[in-house]
Amino acid sequence: VKIDLNADVGEGCGYDERLMPFITSANVAAGAHAGNPSILRATVRLALEHGVAIGAHPGFADREGFGRREQSIPPADAQDLVLAQIELVARAAETEGGRIHHVKPHGALYNMAARDGRLAAAIARAIAGFDRNLILFAPPNSELFAAGRDGGLRVAAEVFADRAYNRDGSLVPRTMAGAVIEDKEAIVSRAIQMVRDQRVAAVDGSDVALQADTVCVHGDTPGCDVLAASLRSAFEAAGIAVAAPAR
Amino acid sequence: VKIDLNADVGEGCGYDERLMPFITSANVAAGAHAGNPSILRATVRLALEHGVAIGAHPGFADREGFGRREQSIPPADAQDLVLAQIELVARAAETEGGRIHHVKPHGALYNMAARDGRLAAAIARAIAGFDRNLILFAPPNSELFAAGRDGGLRVAAEVFADRAYNRDGSLVPRTMAGAVIEDKEAIVSRAIQMVRDQRVAAVDGSDVALQADTVCVHGDTPGCDVLAASLRSAFEAAGIAVAAPAR
Amino acid sequence: VKIDLNADVGEGCGYDERLMPFITSANVAAGAHAGNPSILRATVRLALEHGVAIGAHPGFADREGFGRREQSIPPADAQDLVLAQIELVARAAETEGGRIHHVKPHGALYNMAARDGRLAAAIARAIAGFDRNLILFAPPNSELFAAGRDGGLRVAAEVFADRAYNRDGSLVPRTMAGAVIEDKEAIVSRAIQMVRDQRVAAVDGSDVALQADTVCVHGDTPGCDVLAASLRSAFEAAGIAVAAPAR
Amino acid sequence: VKIDLNADVGEGCGYDERLMPFITSANVAAGAHAGNPSILRATVRLALEHGVAIGAHPGFADREGFGRREQSIPPADAQDLVLAQIELVARAAETEGGRIHHVKPHGALYNMAARDGRLAAAIARAIAGFDRNLILFAPPNSELFAAGRDGGLRVAAEVFADRAYNRDGSLVPRTMAGAVIEDKEAIVSRAIQMVRDQRVAAVDGSDVALQADTVCVHGDTPGCDVLAASLRSAFEAAGIAVAAPAR
Repeated sequence: VKIDLNADVGEGCGYDERLMPFITSANVAAGAHAGNPSILRATVRLALEHGVAIGAHPGFADREGFGRREQSIPPADAQDLVLAQIELVARAAETEGGRIHHVKPHGALYNMAARDGRLAAAIARAIAGFDRNLILFAPPNSELFAAGRDGGLRVAAEVFADRAYNRDGSLVPRTMAGAVIEDKEAIVSRAIQMVRDQRVAAVDGSDVALQADTVCVHGDTPGCDVLAASLRSAFEAAGIAVAAPAR
Repeated sequence: VKIDLNADVGEGCGYDERLMPFITSANVAAGAHAGNPSILRATVRLALEHGVAIGAHPGFADREGFGRREQSIPPADAQDLVLAQIELVARAAETEGGRIHHVKPHGALYNMAARDGRLAAAIARAIAGFDRNLILFAPPNSELFAAGRDGGLRVAAEVFADRAYNRDGSLVPRTMAGAVIEDKEAIVSRAIQMVRDQRVAAVDGSDVALQADTVCVHGDTPGCDVLAASLRSAFEAAGIAVAAPAR
Repeated sequence: VKIDLNADVGEGCGYDERLMPFITSANVAAGAHAGNPSILRATVRLALEHGVAIGAHPGFADREGFGRREQSIPPADAQDLVLAQIELVARAAETEGGRIHHVKPHGALYNMAARDGRLAAAIARAIAGFDRNLILFAPPNSELFAAGRDGGLRVAAEVFADRAYNRDGSLVPRTMAGAVIEDKEAIVSRAIQMVRDQRVAAVDGSDVALQADTVCVHGDTPGCDVLAASLRSAFEAAGIAVAAPAR
Repeated sequence: VKIDLNADVGEGCGYDERLMPFITSANVAAGAHAGNPSILRATVRLALEHGVAIGAHPGFADREGFGRREQSIPPADAQDLVLAQIELVARAAETEGGRIHHVKPHGALYNMAARDGRLAAAIARAIAGFDRNLILFAPPNSELFAAGRDGGLRVAAEVFADRAYNRDGSLVPRTMAGAVIEDKEAIVSRAIQMVRDQRVAAVDGSDVALQADTVCVHGDTPGCDVLAASLRSAFEAAGIAVAAPAR
């Protein structure tokens, strides 16, 4: 059994150095929803120092809303937006002597692409057009996951150990009561279970099958570094190897 | 018969000085989709010098998309967004010895509010909470128009002489063929007709009733200054008074 | 003996809720270098709930650089920039049933104003033009401090317990070795000493007089909440009252 | 005798389509001071349709100030900033079946690099690191010109026919009276003279030698399209070939 631990970094939130020792994939912001070329370079360097796989983390050009506001954007524009951000991260990685490994869309772009097949296909085209060997991080059972597969990409199913799931394997929206699990121990034991069983207990009590290739640690939450360390040691104690998905 | 000629200004597009002699209402950007505090001040000063009525022109905080991308935003946030921008324009006007007269939402915010009653109501609340005597510029027959009326505001119906209309009085989307009328003479004669008859010839040939209190001149189009001058003199030649709506 | 504990908040860095129980002044970002109208409102509400004095925290319109890049800006433009941001915070405070208490410029604007008398005077004019009773937070012995005094404002001298000082009372630049003190216990004992003695041990070993009315806790550093709590309890244990400066 | 006519495009100012028939080099904004990935793609396509040479037009990440505000930025960060923007324009050009030809820094970055050798060298390194065959557009006699030459780049000397020059070949700052020449006929005859004689009449009446390889038409000024057409036909009537500098 194997799992990847990923976090969003390069977003200027101060945790990057504390997270890197524990995570195995770093999704690096490219300057659209957060970050800038210098932060990007420094973050890529940090990931290389820690042997963490580097991913592009493209988001809407929306610093005010931190890329969390849904925008209506034609698929062709979304493709340009994503491609431009992949290029920036890829070039920064090359400049620092590395290369990129995966792409994880950010915030509203990720959520919209999970349910909108045309947007998802545009993102998959942007990735495949750049490098067919990149891995797409996407929610299991989502339009984005399907678009990646249909577009010939390897797709890693991403799960959230601190979020409640519906019976259909989708996330309970943050605005609903009980959507976010706060207790660190509960998150850790839930993560172990999700990875070992590839199943999750949904909010209605039902037991749901859920592919889990990578677990997300939110890189902008106070205490995220402690959580990342706990997850890593709990996985290892449970005999689950922690490593980035193979390219 | 009377009409107002309005244009969006303070957006950094270079036409403001050339438009001011001809328009009667200036919708001034507040720094969210375009502009900044210094441009705002200078634009307000220019409007005061020309006796042009000053309006706030609030838009999404989206410089990359010039406020033309639709965003999903909770109504409470939209209310904060609009109020903040009204305040900035109002204070700039006061500082320069004037006061604001109207509010016209910009771009995607205007289009979304035209069809979404909850968003429209949030905008109306932002305006009424600031000053109940401000005039809201809104498309005739729209949710925004209705929300302004229901919220106790005076509402001026805004029409576009360079755009095709559907049978229900809504605009033909820009993405459709024939949506935008390019010929300057056609625009001018159409404007005269719209104002005099309060009717418009729709794309399907039908004749549609359409309240027209203010005509928009697009302030970011090459040649807009010439068009504004032509409209003004054509209105006056036709015996139509050109003036801002009374507060 | 009395001291104020201040922190920059509303910058989207996740610590605000954890800092509020310990600080007495909150400098709230206004959407130029960070934040947005909704974050602003929520932050002001949080400060009011905790009885924390609300200040405006105006910065350069530079989200990419988090307001930390020095910009060349005419004093008149700086005045507009600062005034616009004071207004936004003041209006948010009023809407939530409070009012603002102080102004602390952010990042590069603060640093530039500390040494540039014309810029400092423009900031003082912006504040005084809005409300003469607002308190300006400024480095002791700086051009900004002097401009506030000359402009008829009350000025609170702000010190940094985690930074080394030069013999002339200025901060050792961050780029120099030893500029930032990392050890939490050293920071706390240094803070106690600065406040009690109104003096600081400079990097050259000399003992320097330094007015200290308010101590800054950096709100964007992991562990800042723990530091704020330690400072607060250490001050109280030392018989130093922790309270915002009186308006 | 030969000259290039260049203009800044892709900045969202509405003139691009009207300028393209007359110019021979297009400096395309990359989304830092203006533009976005979709505008970039569309602008590159337009340039290719008109056979206009495509250049990157990197500027400060300062939409609020349109890249016209000087920022203090470490040379290494400037290098990252410029490289990132070259990449974006280069990739857009490749995607549309073309390739980039030159680099012209924008606004404050251009002005600062003209006088600051370290910043100029950082820009030259960014260009050379990407492609040594790119042409740098720089003011004659400037630090930027020298840094390009020293860095092994071909450099085209850029002149402004609508600006007054000092005796040392530098531009009279815009804030000085007489700095900008408004009269279109004067601009055109001045341009002819500058190109034919490689000299200019300075403000003090002296006659100054000035290398002129490319003339800039400001792409954001009303009437710039008419000026571009006039310059083009005047050059051709004077027997001066209008063409982009050879790579």
